[in-house]
Amino acid sequence: MNYQVVLDEIKDEIKDFLKKGKVADYIPALANVKKNEFAMSIIDLDLNEYHVGSYEKNFSIQSISKVFTFTLALLNYSKELYKRVGHEPSGDPFNSLIQIEHENGIPRNPFINAGAIVTTDSLLSIYKENTFDYILQFIQNITNDKTISFDNEVYTSELKHGYRNVALVNMMKSFGNIENLTNSVIQTYFKQCSISMNTQQLAKSMLFLANHGINPIKNEVLINEAKAKRINSLMLTCGHYDASGDFAYRVGLPGKSGVGGGIVAVVPKKLAICVYAPRLNKQGNSLAGTKALELFTSKTGLSIF
Amino acid sequence: MNYQVVLDEIKDEIKDFLKKGKVADYIPALANVKKNEFAMSIIDLDLNEYHVGSYEKNFSIQSISKVFTFTLALLNYSKELYKRVGHEPSGDPFNSLIQIEHENGIPRNPFINAGAIVTTDSLLSIYKENTFDYILQFIQNITNDKTISFDNEVYTSELKHGYRNVALVNMMKSFGNIENLTNSVIQTYFKQCSISMNTQQLAKSMLFLANHGINPIKNEVLINEAKAKRINSLMLTCGHYDASGDFAYRVGLPGKSGVGGGIVAVVPKKLAICVYAPRLNKQGNSLAGTKALELFTSKTGLSIF
Amino acid sequence: MNYQVVLDEIKDEIKDFLKKGKVADYIPALANVKKNEFAMSIIDLDLNEYHVGSYEKNFSIQSISKVFTFTLALLNYSKELYKRVGHEPSGDPFNSLIQIEHENGIPRNPFINAGAIVTTDSLLSIYKENTFDYILQFIQNITNDKTISFDNEVYTSELKHGYRNVALVNMMKSFGNIENLTNSVIQTYFKQCSISMNTQQLAKSMLFLANHGINPIKNEVLINEAKAKRINSLMLTCGHYDASGDFAYRVGLPGKSGVGGGIVAVVPKKLAICVYAPRLNKQGNSLAGTKALELFTSKTGLSIF
Amino acid sequence: MNYQVVLDEIKDEIKDFLKKGKVADYIPALANVKKNEFAMSIIDLDLNEYHVGSYEKNFSIQSISKVFTFTLALLNYSKELYKRVGHEPSGDPFNSLIQIEHENGIPRNPFINAGAIVTTDSLLSIYKENTFDYILQFIQNITNDKTISFDNEVYTSELKHGYRNVALVNMMKSFGNIENLTNSVIQTYFKQCSISMNTQQLAKSMLFLANHGINPIKNEVLINEAKAKRINSLMLTCGHYDASGDFAYRVGLPGKSGVGGGIVAVVPKKLAICVYAPRLNKQGNSLAGTKALELFTSKTGLSIF
Repeated sequence: MNYQVVLDEIKDEIKDFLKKGKVADYIPALANVKKNEFAMSIIDLDLNEYHVGSYEKNFSIQSISKVFTFTLALLNYSKELYKRVGHEPSGDPFNSLIQIEHENGIPRNPFINAGAIVTTDSLLSIYKENTFDYILQFIQNITNDKTISFDNEVYTSELKHGYRNVALVNMMKSFGNIENLTNSVIQTYFKQCSISMNTQQLAKSMLFLANHGINPIKNEVLINEAKAKRINSLMLTCGHYDASGDFAYRVGLPGKSGVGGGIVAVVPKKLAICVYAPRLNKQGNSLAGTKALELFTSKTGLSIF
Repeated sequence: MNYQVVLDEIKDEIKDFLKKGKVADYIPALANVKKNEFAMSIIDLDLNEYHVGSYEKNFSIQSISKVFTFTLALLNYSKELYKRVGHEPSGDPFNSLIQIEHENGIPRNPFINAGAIVTTDSLLSIYKENTFDYILQFIQNITNDKTISFDNEVYTSELKHGYRNVALVNMMKSFGNIENLTNSVIQTYFKQCSISMNTQQLAKSMLFLANHGINPIKNEVLINEAKAKRINSLMLTCGHYDASGDFAYRVGLPGKSGVGGGIVAVVPKKLAICVYAPRLNKQGNSLAGTKALELFTSKTGLSIF
Repeated sequence: MNYQVVLDEIKDEIKDFLKKGKVADYIPALANVKKNEFAMSIIDLDLNEYHVGSYEKNFSIQSISKVFTFTLALLNYSKELYKRVGHEPSGDPFNSLIQIEHENGIPRNPFINAGAIVTTDSLLSIYKENTFDYILQFIQNITNDKTISFDNEVYTSELKHGYRNVALVNMMKSFGNIENLTNSVIQTYFKQCSISMNTQQLAKSMLFLANHGINPIKNEVLINEAKAKRINSLMLTCGHYDASGDFAYRVGLPGKSGVGGGIVAVVPKKLAICVYAPRLNKQGNSLAGTKALELFTSKTGLSIF
Repeated sequence: MNYQVVLDEIKDEIKDFLKKGKVADYIPALANVKKNEFAMSIIDLDLNEYHVGSYEKNFSIQSISKVFTFTLALLNYSKELYKRVGHEPSGDPFNSLIQIEHENGIPRNPFINAGAIVTTDSLLSIYKENTFDYILQFIQNITNDKTISFDNEVYTSELKHGYRNVALVNMMKSFGNIENLTNSVIQTYFKQCSISMNTQQLAKSMLFLANHGINPIKNEVLINEAKAKRINSLMLTCGHYDASGDFAYRVGLPGKSGVGGGIVAVVPKKLAICVYAPRLNKQGNSLAGTKALELFTSKTGLSIF
């Protein structure tokens, strides 16, 4: 299939959607983006690349970082991690404390904020003060790209305005589900959210999940097949907060979105894909990005269903 | 792949799990089953059949009926149905009223009780007093099996003990999301839950979902491809109540369970599968059945992820 | 103190408030009232009476009936009743099912709908098919007024539209907290809500609570002092749904409101008072009635605080 | 009435209850108390004093401090404060975040933790870095006792373990309902909770509420009558977390408890009373203290109902 043609068509058809939705503005640094920008990248398992739009333009990956830290955690833990974070859809918004209070401080899954914070805490217990460096190196390694870094302005902004996440980490600490100092946990979490990448890099970073755990860039086993499939299943059921069902329904691919406007997705055994469009729908997922991926599976028939 | 060998292995490996869990006992008629029974059927798109255990023994399909009524509703409605029932995982147990009260009487998805009741109500608005007959004929038609019927003892038992479902239909009526008489709706709903089938029939009945909407038994288009995929995505994200994420994580197939002990699942473009084992886990899904399907995807690599 | 002067002043000062708020319209029979009507009655323990407005005009007592049925239940039960209904404010609206689901079918207090339904069920277990007659006779007896009856049009209307209450009784039945047939319970409950009284009769009916359990009309002990005080405390903490705190804060008297527009209140050791004004605030309590009682305690200094 | 006789009788009858319940142990400093200690003080409006037990022994006043800060806030604010904190019972435990999330960061009342934190924040906006000093001076002033101070060990302990309260202040900050730095707010709040007093001092400190706002110790108007009554009504409906209804039901007096084991209460126009017994019931109120106050109103007939 000629993916370049597909991407060009999508770029054309998506135009009207680029003006809808609202850019994340809870921190000033995120609000300072070109609001109508669009980029989309496909990389298949033979490493053929297809791009459209500003695919070399960096943006804040935000919650997409949760896929990387959860993968790292799965490399270090197995069943003990599942006692601290579940794998069920939450049915609640990404930053809800209600479920945490009802369920003794155990977040429903690693892709809502609370679950990602626990995941980061589990890494801190291993990597200590080097945790963020390990996370960043892990991403640089799987993409074979040492230029990837984080945006200090976004990080500082998160530190200043992220009261809800500070509430989450303290709430879970009160239930005994945070092992390290709340400040260390929240700083590391905010830093990982502040990592900047473009659609090309993000598509590359997801290839190991499209390839059952083997990173085709370096032809090395990154994680075993069972765990790779489980990360995919989690992206499908929980990757888009309380719009996860809708994304599965309309797009039909495992994916993960971030409030920075990026969405990654994988077609198992075939390819990884990333789209960027900063305006969000009311659940906090890229509005045009979701539509672009819906067009992609409609045109290619590559939904997993 | 030799599915018969796979089924025989599973039957052997599943033995210990058949003694775990509890048979549904909220109605006496359901509690009267052989507790350790097991059956499993695979039918591929070429109609080759593979069975193990008591695959000709009928059991109560219960919530599996929700797949049939939702399919029927999608044949009659499109966007107007989505205003009355969502497509997000609920994060709550199958019979919860909390989400209904918080969200103005709109159930999260058609595979929790409240959503299935709304679906049945939407059919009543079309088929009136013949609704149950249409539902039953639809199932007989897609399986090409006129012997399929419902169990009157189970139906009577549900009528007598189904207070929670009566609460659900009245709650939604109070929000204006039930169009017909509450008694008609609940009777039709209880009757559809009381339909009896065996694993062979249920595997057959799911072939159209494995085949993108075309029923291979009669080689006819039952529903369009987009809608068939969407039903599959809903089974994946919402098919097992608040254990849907766990099922996706461990099994990796679109599926739907019933408290009667049955679970159906599909491998898109390949086959349909049904397992029966009446003892349930605490979320109300067949305990050994879930394990059997996990073994199936592990052995065959047929997870969609 | 000259209560007649106080009442006349209140009638004058309340005028603007009589046009605010909305008459209950969930059943047509309740919506058919003169919207701006006003009546207020004070009766002291020496049986001196003071009235203003249409104090002989009957209206639907609705939830005020909960005080009578709870008193009757306390005459028949003691600790066993407290296992079935609590005595804490609920913090939720009067017809919420959420708390019921979270707390195993045990309502927080007897003055929200669910709690009153359980109370009525407890009476049905004793008085069987004569339950409503006993309730009505009890009210006729304590007011020494055999003319008091119920409004059949309101009753029929409730039966036709009371889906939410039908949901409540079925929900509690599913938890095992309803002993009798759901239909019998809900019919009796709707009938007690349909009783018609005027402010004079209602003020009379509360005298035993102002007088520590002794009805001054007949000079007989109706209920012991401890229980009378407890009913008063429940009216104070739970008598006005999720506006109970506000009523205590502004008025400072034990009281009970009904969506028919009536509010009763007592000044312990002094008097009983009833006000009628059918337009309701958003919590379902008479808007002008609440204001009138606030004026009453301001002018007389008779708040219990 | 001879209150000394009443106190002596209570001391005798309470013995068995002193061994029931559990001392607060969420911070080590609170767990280090004599578990079976008991003290009770009554002071009437003529300043006659009656004591029993270790009435000169200091303990941590904890949530009783909320009465002082709310009084101070009412002296500085009127309607603008009610926009930031309600006056309804919450129906939830003292440290719940659920209601805060559902209701846009507005706590239900000033006597749950969240509401007290908002109250303290409102004082910080006025008194800045001197806020705690003002709070302490206010208490010293109304009791005419300059020896009252706070316990630094308890304060340090709260700072170290009070994750849940840190979660609360950050949650409300995320909704815009905290004006000052979260750290300043939480430090001031923890410090006010760490104030140490004995039953004699606490009974004195409540006299102005028993006397409609006039402090009989100095014969000066502390707060106007309407506001004094409103504080009393709030203590009655919300003073004991999710056991407020039960306290009103059994004791029938406006009161406020603290997890340190103290409870204060007032009999309007008559007296103030304080009891200390550190073992708590499951809602976090002094178990023997509640029983002692129940005995007090039974013996004296001084319930407000």
